[in-house]
Amino acid sequence: MLPEQTFLRIPGPTPIPPSVQRTMSQPMIGHRNQETKDLLQTIKPKLKPVFGTEQDVLILSGSGTAGLEAAVVNAVQPDEAVLVIVTGAFGDRFVKICEEYEIAVHRYDVQWGEAVSPEAIAAYLADHPDIKTVFATYCETSTGVLNPIKELAHVVHQNTDALFIVDGVSCVGGIQTEMDTWGIDILVTGSQKAMMLPAGLTFVAVSERAWRVIEENERPAFYLDLKRYRDQLANNSTPFTPAISLLFGLEQVLTMLEEEGLNQVYERHQMMKDMTRAAFRALDIPLLTSDEAASPTVTAIKPNDFKAEALRNILKSKFGLATAGGQQHLKGQIFRIGHMGYCSPADVLQTISIIETALHKIGKSIELGKGTKAAQETLLKVDV
Amino acid sequence: MLPEQTFLRIPGPTPIPPSVQRTMSQPMIGHRNQETKDLLQTIKPKLKPVFGTEQDVLILSGSGTAGLEAAVVNAVQPDEAVLVIVTGAFGDRFVKICEEYEIAVHRYDVQWGEAVSPEAIAAYLADHPDIKTVFATYCETSTGVLNPIKELAHVVHQNTDALFIVDGVSCVGGIQTEMDTWGIDILVTGSQKAMMLPAGLTFVAVSERAWRVIEENERPAFYLDLKRYRDQLANNSTPFTPAISLLFGLEQVLTMLEEEGLNQVYERHQMMKDMTRAAFRALDIPLLTSDEAASPTVTAIKPNDFKAEALRNILKSKFGLATAGGQQHLKGQIFRIGHMGYCSPADVLQTISIIETALHKIGKSIELGKGTKAAQETLLKVDV
Repeated sequence: MLPEQTFLRIPGPTPIPPSVQRTMSQPMIGHRNQETKDLLQTIKPKLKPVFGTEQDVLILSGSGTAGLEAAVVNAVQPDEAVLVIVTGAFGDRFVKICEEYEIAVHRYDVQWGEAVSPEAIAAYLADHPDIKTVFATYCETSTGVLNPIKELAHVVHQNTDALFIVDGVSCVGGIQTEMDTWGIDILVTGSQKAMMLPAGLTFVAVSERAWRVIEENERPAFYLDLKRYRDQLANNSTPFTPAISLLFGLEQVLTMLEEEGLNQVYERHQMMKDMTRAAFRALDIPLLTSDEAASPTVTAIKPNDFKAEALRNILKSKFGLATAGGQQHLKGQIFRIGHMGYCSPADVLQTISIIETALHKIGKSIELGKGTKAAQETLLKVDV
Repeated sequence: MLPEQTFLRIPGPTPIPPSVQRTMSQPMIGHRNQETKDLLQTIKPKLKPVFGTEQDVLILSGSGTAGLEAAVVNAVQPDEAVLVIVTGAFGDRFVKICEEYEIAVHRYDVQWGEAVSPEAIAAYLADHPDIKTVFATYCETSTGVLNPIKELAHVVHQNTDALFIVDGVSCVGGIQTEMDTWGIDILVTGSQKAMMLPAGLTFVAVSERAWRVIEENERPAFYLDLKRYRDQLANNSTPFTPAISLLFGLEQVLTMLEEEGLNQVYERHQMMKDMTRAAFRALDIPLLTSDEAASPTVTAIKPNDFKAEALRNILKSKFGLATAGGQQHLKGQIFRIGHMGYCSPADVLQTISIIETALHKIGKSIELGKGTKAAQETLLKVDV
């Protein structure tokens, strides 16, 4: 109703906190000056707990895909076979990157909307001893599935000496991630999801095991050569011109995460997931994923008696509320709500109460307020 | 739940639209340069329809009180008697300003929460023929009452040759105001309410009748001398240094009002009032004012079985939702919700759903979602 007002509830990019917006509008600084060194020195230790690692987290200017490709070209030797676990569109992207480099890909497909079973992967790995790298998606953005990364890391390392590489783009920063103790070898994320920044940075954390593989790798890489980033970051620098305004913003995001407390941040995301799911259950509108497989950052809904696109159009045109549709074969079948980063239970209450109103407008018979009530009850179960 | 997230739902200041925030951060310009003349030339015609006048609307750098005082010192001769209609704290302020200048004040008090009756004022004026100026408050911010300004103007001009001066601070820009056709002689508002700006500007529109009185007036005024503002504005200038960044913002606000359409802006405010009132009625929580006396910009609620301050504290500390308390003898008795300016029905849905949750937290027994449902139903009655 207010032309300028928009509620960005897609699974990334997410709204930018005002303090981050402000800090990003600082005057530029020279990227080879001391100010940039100081900025990187401040950022380095604050990034580690978000990834659950003692390693320096590398910062590349580029989108999440650049980070995923960096993982592939740095860690996979030309003659090696890899396993890609595909639970949706972003697992598929790992396959496409590998195929571009003519890497022998074992593709393990899981029905969209389900999480992969670690036991199935253990069995698959036992049958395919040639696999040297396993790729998995932490949160599959296209379906709202959270894959059991800790358990997957366990079965990979128990059954093989393969590296375990994880796309954490749409959840790291919004869910507990313990790269070192779980045994993730390369963990990639982007800036525009739970990290609350505009797109433009990708973060890559690399285990000691993975560095040993990377050091031996003969595959060419220049902009995406992780060793260059590691060596420069050791001196609080970058191999290529960094996106300075995003680094300003990153420092503020990390301060915000520290001030709220990472555990509280993760609990907030779980709460937003629980509220969203309770609301659609109360309204008797099917969720795509089971509770066990559901991500704390994005929820996919699969209506059986109204058109997802009709709802999305009304939400956008009448209320300024942006949601996401389905991808590939789920196009038109589902809609997705992002609840990550700069998003609160109060925002979820608003989202649900708007969606209820819009459902009524498209002629779907629901009891108004019932989903909101379920979300409120979920919130009241804990001491908010 | 997000430390940085706040929902400003007090009756001013109101949230600033992002485009206004952005335009206000433009580099400064010289206030005697052509750029400022151009800016004022653009602003002048766009302000008139907001006030419903063909007169130039004067722009003073100062708060609303400066505008109210300017009305008093410019329009009231030293030896004249005035009538101040007091329906709350801001009627009271007109009295205080008049008393500071030792003006003979007839004070007509109305019980807080009620609107004044035009018939009663007609009778009062008939009994007091010495009154040369009548002061009234359009929206009484302290109670959420909207006084019948059109009807008051009518009885003032029918019964006297007095000037009719109106404090429109907390509603002009959010409700239809037809200064010329209704017969308001001086209309004052501030920038931080329905005008969606930070505080710092006050707007004063003056009728031809009032200018004739002002020209004759011998009371001294310098910064608040409206003739200086009129004469300078005729040349697209200001007598004293203007608050340039607020003028940048004002131009954008006026563009926004024009683009949304003033009628749509006013309907949106009526809708937000109706939604808010429907919600509290559904929850069986008393409203301070009757439907007839209710303002489209602020709603006062007078709970009878819970403490307003307990609710307000939880709203602020747990949800970042700022509401207003009561003033003077209503302190602790009521709470007030602002719904004006950069505020939408979607914001009202959020406000209500948060308040329901907070009511539950302070132990008030309500059916969760019931108020939200009533607000949704109200919104669905029109083609949003």
